[in-house]
Amino acid sequence: MPHISLPEGYPGIRSLFMYSPVTAAPMNNLVQVLLHDEATSTLTPGERELIATYTSHLNTCKYCANTHGAIAQYQLGNNPVLVSQVRVNPDTADISDKMKALLKIAAKVQLDGKNVLAADIDFARQQGATDKEIHDTVLIAAAFCMYNRYVDGLATWAPDDPAVYDAIGRQRAAQGYMTAPFIVK
Amino acid sequence: MPHISLPEGYPGIRSLFMYSPVTAAPMNNLVQVLLHDEATSTLTPGERELIATYTSHLNTCKYCANTHGAIAQYQLGNNPVLVSQVRVNPDTADISDKMKALLKIAAKVQLDGKNVLAADIDFARQQGATDKEIHDTVLIAAAFCMYNRYVDGLATWAPDDPAVYDAIGRQRAAQGYMTAPFIVK
Repeated sequence: MPHISLPEGYPGIRSLFMYSPVTAAPMNNLVQVLLHDEATSTLTPGERELIATYTSHLNTCKYCANTHGAIAQYQLGNNPVLVSQVRVNPDTADISDKMKALLKIAAKVQLDGKNVLAADIDFARQQGATDKEIHDTVLIAAAFCMYNRYVDGLATWAPDDPAVYDAIGRQRAAQGYMTAPFIVK
Repeated sequence: MPHISLPEGYPGIRSLFMYSPVTAAPMNNLVQVLLHDEATSTLTPGERELIATYTSHLNTCKYCANTHGAIAQYQLGNNPVLVSQVRVNPDTADISDKMKALLKIAAKVQLDGKNVLAADIDFARQQGATDKEIHDTVLIAAAFCMYNRYVDGLATWAPDDPAVYDAIGRQRAAQGYMTAPFIVK
């Protein structure tokens, strides 16, 4: 049961966005720019969703890891196996060496930004990562340390039914974050 | 030295907001609503800045803890002693029992949202905290887990000179976050 009285029937951050529209607006704008807009990053939306999924998995945030895992799945050609591989161990997943290096940086940010060392950055550059891609990775991992804590810190509802996450995954992969944010009820 | 090439002479998150205006806009809007706007919370701006300061202190984010400490100082009648007390130990600081209970929740969120227990919420309510104040506390603590990791994860410049933080404190306490964001150079 959530720690505070939230609109019933809405899972995870959707209940919080209903409860507090004034903070929902910038938080929703941020995730749209960070994860979905094509023009804002040279990482694909699928790659960015993988960083969000992996960070949420490391934070053991069930709602966010399952939601963004489902979005990543649809952004990456409906590939649930790849998403599972990344959640378990990016090093053995079927992803580029650049993505493996970026996910190592994300894992360090998840614990503490100061854990990211010059050697981690150098290694990511050797795998082809640009400054902008390193920036985007750090900010996505940092942002999901916020979203995850918001969702878990108020004990929001995380459905058990995989169909809920599948529906959100299809919707967000196709439409992004700015349309009909609360259609899953 | 920052991990990526950032505009020189700008400290902390200011260099990142210059580097990436497209993400700066929602991040700046969020902090304005969360910390500064009077209409969005029944916690005072000074109380909300204390939560941001304390969370940043726990995350050992020098730039954010000093910046928001200075803003809190000016929001609370130019009281640097109170800010120092909160950073060291909220339980012995000259603040309300409600604020002590809310800062306990913030400290739990800083580690993991799931650490917040029903008993922590009940205790905060007994000290007079409303649902909205508990919500705002959790989100401020969560948001600074993002800002702190963004600032530290890219190794931005944190000045040693207290005068820099004092100038930012005076400016933000008076003007909020939406005006002349980058005047300290």
